Amino acid sequence: MATRWGIASAGKISHDFVTALSVLPLAEHVVVAVAARQLSRAKDFATLHNIKAAYGSYEELAKDPNVDVVYVGSIHPQHLQITSLMLSSGKPCLVEKPLTLNLKETKQLINLARNKKLFLMEAIWSRFFPVYQLLRDELKAGTLGDVLQVIANFGIPIEAVERIKQELGGGSILDLGVYLLQLAVLVFGPVIPEKILASGDLNKEGVDSSMAAILNYGAGKVATLSTHTRGTFPNEAFIVGTKGTIK
Amino acid sequence: MATRWGIASAGKISHDFVTALSVLPLAEHVVVAVAARQLSRAKDFATLHNIKAAYGSYEELAKDPNVDVVYVGSIHPQHLQITSLMLSSGKPCLVEKPLTLNLKETKQLINLARNKKLFLMEAIWSRFFPVYQLLRDELKAGTLGDVLQVIANFGIPIEAVERIKQELGGGSILDLGVYLLQLAVLVFGPVIPEKILASGDLNKEGVDSSMAAILNYGAGKVATLSTHTRGTFPNEAFIVGTKGTIK
Repeated sequence: MATRWGIASAGKISHDFVTALSVLPLAEHVVVAVAARQLSRAKDFATLHNIKAAYGSYEELAKDPNVDVVYVGSIHPQHLQITSLMLSSGKPCLVEKPLTLNLKETKQLINLARNKKLFLMEAIWSRFFPVYQLLRDELKAGTLGDVLQVIANFGIPIEAVERIKQELGGGSILDLGVYLLQLAVLVFGPVIPEKILASGDLNKEGVDSSMAAILNYGAGKVATLSTHTRGTFPNEAFIVGTKGTIK
Repeated sequence: MATRWGIASAGKISHDFVTALSVLPLAEHVVVAVAARQLSRAKDFATLHNIKAAYGSYEELAKDPNVDVVYVGSIHPQHLQITSLMLSSGKPCLVEKPLTLNLKETKQLINLARNKKLFLMEAIWSRFFPVYQLLRDELKAGTLGDVLQVIANFGIPIEAVERIKQELGGGSILDLGVYLLQLAVLVFGPVIPEKILASGDLNKEGVDSSMAAILNYGAGKVATLSTHTRGTFPNEAFIVGTKGTIK
């Protein structure tokens, strides 16, 4: 039987998610419901993507017995509330990145998911690119020797994007930094850095417009990450070991 | 009349310097003397490079009236002493990088040179590559727009090199980091960073085997630099502005 998805929030990223899901066999994945704060938006979304049920509240989606798993595609500051609601109602969740706005909220969701014994995952799509499987294979095979350094940067001019406001949870770390951080965690994790140094700048909205961070794992193992919302960076990552480098 | 060079120390880097100088017209540059702690080494060097005078002490070189300017090519910890001797004797100096081991020694040399009204320069050869002139021209022309970020890394496996010992002044910062730092200074200088964060690791010899630094110049202007003595880094530099990037 197909996994039956419910979609929380009818924004752009939910469109992208449902569109991507639609290339998989209907026998495996089917979207059965969508909810938005405004019923009209949910209905438009349902019509566009040929979804059976449309709700004007997240509570209705949480109660829908036909929904096996919920994709949370709302703006960042709503992730905690919507995901808590879904988990409390017994729904496993795939939550768009960033999972929440901070460590406290993330711990809250993880604890709730553990208590309820429910699946909870942050939707970092890049981690599922085939190149990441290759990367994992090469790291496991020791091709690079002793891995010493991750150098990664991500900068795109998104300062004009509506989301880059404090109340919307935008910014260079939550919008871009997570992609760099998950790479460092993939390479050096599950070890926790011995020392983290970070620096950045806030724009007029009080949002981080740039960030640079050093994650020192000890023994010469370091990740150097930088993000920016005003310039186009090379957007490259290097994983350097004693025997070679993956770019 | 040709500039008459005296060479302090007959090591490998002095060989390289004299060899490079030899491609210039003799009417412009001529090496007239070399000094080493051992007279035999100075004599061998003089024979190899066809230099008239060879001395077994730096004092003799400092007193040689035929020497217009001294190139100091000794190991790092001797730079302060030899350069002080030369400046005190009225000789302008070109000192191999790093100029000294620390800020205190550097200030000492600069003050001495100022008092004596003598030329003193750190021999960062890369700064004189034609590409640096191009870089300066593009920065001046504003091709990159508002320059936001310098991302640079330099790592080569030099841990086995004899110099990488505390008493010889070796290490990833003094051996490699200066090249990155001078680039950041060229791009963002003469402004001083508002904040500097740095992290690194020491090897068994107590020498920094790796380093990562964030130089935050404010207003979203940041340099992210990393060095390593154990792996081969991409050894690339990016200068990112709002309108473009130079690699």
